[in-house]
Amino acid sequence: MRAQQFFISTLKEAPADADIASQKLMIRAGMIKKLAAGVYTYMPMGLRVIRKIENIVREEMDRAGSIEMLMPIVQPAELWKESGRWEKYGPELLRFKDRHDRDFVIQPTSEEVITDFARQEITSWRQLPVNFYQIQTKFRDERRPRFGLMRGREFIMKDAYSFDRDAQKAGESYKKMFDAYCRIFSRTGLVFRPVAADTGSIGGSRSNEFQVIADTGEDLIAYSTGSGYAANIELAEALPPAAERQAPKETLQKVPTPGCDKCESVTALLGLPLTRSVKSVVLAADRTDEAGRSLPARIVLVLLRGDHSLNEVKVGKLPELKDGFRFATEAEILEAFGSKPGYLGPVGLDPQKVKVYGDLSVRCMSDFVVGANEEGFHLRGVNFGRDFPEPQFADLRNVVEGDPSPDGQGTLKLQRGIEVGHVFYLGTKYSSAMGATYLDEQGHPQPLEMGCYGIGISRVAGAAIEQNHDDKGIIWPEAIAPFEVVICPMGYRRSEAVREACDRLHDELQKAGVDVILDDRDMRPGPMFADWELIGVPHRIVVGDRGLKNGEVEYTSRRSLDKREMVRLENAAAFILEKLKAARA
Amino acid sequence: MRAQQFFISTLKEAPADADIASQKLMIRAGMIKKLAAGVYTYMPMGLRVIRKIENIVREEMDRAGSIEMLMPIVQPAELWKESGRWEKYGPELLRFKDRHDRDFVIQPTSEEVITDFARQEITSWRQLPVNFYQIQTKFRDERRPRFGLMRGREFIMKDAYSFDRDAQKAGESYKKMFDAYCRIFSRTGLVFRPVAADTGSIGGSRSNEFQVIADTGEDLIAYSTGSGYAANIELAEALPPAAERQAPKETLQKVPTPGCDKCESVTALLGLPLTRSVKSVVLAADRTDEAGRSLPARIVLVLLRGDHSLNEVKVGKLPELKDGFRFATEAEILEAFGSKPGYLGPVGLDPQKVKVYGDLSVRCMSDFVVGANEEGFHLRGVNFGRDFPEPQFADLRNVVEGDPSPDGQGTLKLQRGIEVGHVFYLGTKYSSAMGATYLDEQGHPQPLEMGCYGIGISRVAGAAIEQNHDDKGIIWPEAIAPFEVVICPMGYRRSEAVREACDRLHDELQKAGVDVILDDRDMRPGPMFADWELIGVPHRIVVGDRGLKNGEVEYTSRRSLDKREMVRLENAAAFILEKLKAARA
Repeated sequence: MRAQQFFISTLKEAPADADIASQKLMIRAGMIKKLAAGVYTYMPMGLRVIRKIENIVREEMDRAGSIEMLMPIVQPAELWKESGRWEKYGPELLRFKDRHDRDFVIQPTSEEVITDFARQEITSWRQLPVNFYQIQTKFRDERRPRFGLMRGREFIMKDAYSFDRDAQKAGESYKKMFDAYCRIFSRTGLVFRPVAADTGSIGGSRSNEFQVIADTGEDLIAYSTGSGYAANIELAEALPPAAERQAPKETLQKVPTPGCDKCESVTALLGLPLTRSVKSVVLAADRTDEAGRSLPARIVLVLLRGDHSLNEVKVGKLPELKDGFRFATEAEILEAFGSKPGYLGPVGLDPQKVKVYGDLSVRCMSDFVVGANEEGFHLRGVNFGRDFPEPQFADLRNVVEGDPSPDGQGTLKLQRGIEVGHVFYLGTKYSSAMGATYLDEQGHPQPLEMGCYGIGISRVAGAAIEQNHDDKGIIWPEAIAPFEVVICPMGYRRSEAVREACDRLHDELQKAGVDVILDDRDMRPGPMFADWELIGVPHRIVVGDRGLKNGEVEYTSRRSLDKREMVRLENAAAFILEKLKAARA
Repeated sequence: MRAQQFFISTLKEAPADADIASQKLMIRAGMIKKLAAGVYTYMPMGLRVIRKIENIVREEMDRAGSIEMLMPIVQPAELWKESGRWEKYGPELLRFKDRHDRDFVIQPTSEEVITDFARQEITSWRQLPVNFYQIQTKFRDERRPRFGLMRGREFIMKDAYSFDRDAQKAGESYKKMFDAYCRIFSRTGLVFRPVAADTGSIGGSRSNEFQVIADTGEDLIAYSTGSGYAANIELAEALPPAAERQAPKETLQKVPTPGCDKCESVTALLGLPLTRSVKSVVLAADRTDEAGRSLPARIVLVLLRGDHSLNEVKVGKLPELKDGFRFATEAEILEAFGSKPGYLGPVGLDPQKVKVYGDLSVRCMSDFVVGANEEGFHLRGVNFGRDFPEPQFADLRNVVEGDPSPDGQGTLKLQRGIEVGHVFYLGTKYSSAMGATYLDEQGHPQPLEMGCYGIGISRVAGAAIEQNHDDKGIIWPEAIAPFEVVICPMGYRRSEAVREACDRLHDELQKAGVDVILDDRDMRPGPMFADWELIGVPHRIVVGDRGLKNGEVEYTSRRSLDKREMVRLENAAAFILEKLKAARA
């Protein structure tokens, strides 16, 4: 490729509303252009990256035996009503009416359509297992789209769906996809980690996320220093502390704590470690009577150690909260506790009004500090049983660094990640709802066991940049770079020797299957280099008269810009091929 | 590829609502599956065809210097309001509101977005010419979707847009695309014809359609027997007849014609040739006053020779009708003519109420027959000037076979076609509306000259079948067949010799880059052959023990199923490669 035949458009500055490195750099490098909130045009440079990611995904999905098909973007509401997601899916599901006033959605994912397909197409156990995938544009009407391709509304996704005869076979399909995902993300050249994850709104009972490690990631990952354990913090189990609860030593005492409405300030005032305080988090679950009229919300108090934080996924599984919950309002808190927030605690509550749960870490505590349910006061020397009824205990907190690994091997560390892939074992959630069955050997109908498997193609591009950039721009891994090599001529029009050397090297590399671009724009070296450092092409060859006098060209890797290496012109192609071999292996 | 690793799903019968051969065959062959009216899933077999078409299109667009990008499917209304198409585009434009109540559309085409892109990205004459394309899902909310992929609502289209500095350069870009389209459709292996066409709602001043010739096509094409002239009948010019108008010989005479409300029956009754009658077609253009209140419609009478038919595109250019028209209602006709339809004519009309136009073929007529504006009566011996005022004449009819070619060489013939591609010279229609300019050498802003170029990727698949099928199924041209070759074993599991020969041939062909499928489903020969004849794979090799005894396999072409040829097993791969060479050239 020659730059003059391509479209290169770089910017000095990112627009003010870009809020993350990948977004800024993709816009500056002329890869994407915002059309509306969360909706981007893929410019030619950006589309090359997307296509390379797509091709890796396609090759590995094919290799894993998944069969490509293509489902519609516009899908009729009927199927979404059958599965129950028409009601359950929030406003992220874009609903519209066609000219005949029929309800449709723009697909955010295709479980319904593939299940409908399967119930028509899969009739016999002989057809199983089978796995289908598509690479297709999706739409989720995010309330607050941000981070460019990372949390856009329109995005490109690979989604696959497996169908099996029973749970064991479904587990095998799941494993196959898990392995394919490991190959896919290895091939992209990104540092990633598969982690155990919550199944969220997709449903099902088992799930793994594939997280690209990056400090800017929205997700927190807990992993063990002593084993392969890794999980999204949403799911990571906090083991019950080994310590036994001590017998009470102190008497209950009400102490004035004016203005101290946080555990940190209370314990500082009292000269106690933060771990001696217990935090009160008040949650509310909305309720209606049979006629659909609002009832007062169910109020739930969660007790956490002062230095711990609430895990919303874990509390979302408590019986009172499993159908959805929110933080209680100040009015609800006043009504149930008789006090403003900041001074709440479990002592003296009306069990009719408040259901209390304690985190496992709280269970072994004694002589601790809680709010007195009176503004400006706390209680110290508080003990279970003696001062208030023993609540139910459960794992309700986020793990912290240093916690023991749930598998008993090593301790946990935390890192941030960007979710780029997700595999789910769905069981029969969709097939039962939609009546997708096959006939077994005895001719009996059995529900299809399903799995679903997603990769955010466009998000991979963003995550790659979050993980690989510097102050000059993007540093693409070879496998997903828009070009593998750029040839930068010093005076393409001026010097015949330079032009000839560049043209020859370009053609030689192209013939060898290298994705090379020759910058024939005849720019000055500074801006030309700046462009390619911003765009992030991994390998650069500079061809100038000075080097050519000695029969040499200059090689630089995008990863080490200050290390320049002279290479004999006649060896340059072989030199580049050698550099690419490692990345292509 | 092996059939067991792929997804093959054929049907004996097409669903009752399939109304055209390609739709029936694609459904029966397991290529597409209807999800909603005009919305289809591409099953694995069908997607292979789509991808092959896409690849041909992509290669030729790249070769022609067009640069691939990808614009969003969901587009903000603002841009469509700027271009004026938000109002002008009918209900085919699917409009919806997002969760923040902002207006959006699902793209039917991307002129607005690319013009917005160009006005931001193209600043200087140095960047011109430039041409961008995308292959992307489109949506048009057709009132009555039908014919499967031919007139679906969701479809896959390649759309390209060229930008030039002036009309002459834009003409060069147009020519380049025209030539690329000729290469593309030649490579698909389809019989096609580029024809001059009307620009319709896209606008612009020059346009060519690429029509795949098929008896079931919706379009009529006129072409010359004596030159390269070809045009959509919408546009094909009818030359004024060479004959002079004769002086009146008959007197005006009112004749009873009870029950004869068609030219055919009137002339039969009167014993005259149909060409002596003049047909009255009444059209109406709705009007409103400045306040937007409805006024009575403007009534226009078009006079055509009895054997001719109205050309709606041509009459749509008359000054009274250029902003839209419809056929007049019976009430409007009664009010303006004082008679029911079927007995209408130009004699005695109130020029305040009816504006009269005559087709050029009518201009040279004398002593003709028209309706008497009285039920059950016609007038004969009618003449211009003497009996009613000479109207304005224009070319308002569809050409018929035998008409002289508009270029003066040869006569016209008609054939049916399916529009699969369309190239438009747009001029500055969009760039002026949206302020897309570049700076010329003098630093003066100039509007960008644009062209746009579409190919209905999914429609090509349908058109290919309309052109190439028989009572057994589809006959794909090699270049877009889902597979080029199928190997059909007679007893794949039973006979080791058969299995080995098939596996070896399969691997050999695959290694040679042939798109081969080995049917390892172990079916009986009859249903197996029926499947592949329905699916339409162009080349078939049957491997059985009987042939193998003599070291032979049997070859059949899908185009001549009753011609079977024995080929030596060791030559079979070379034999197939030779067959494919012609198609691949």
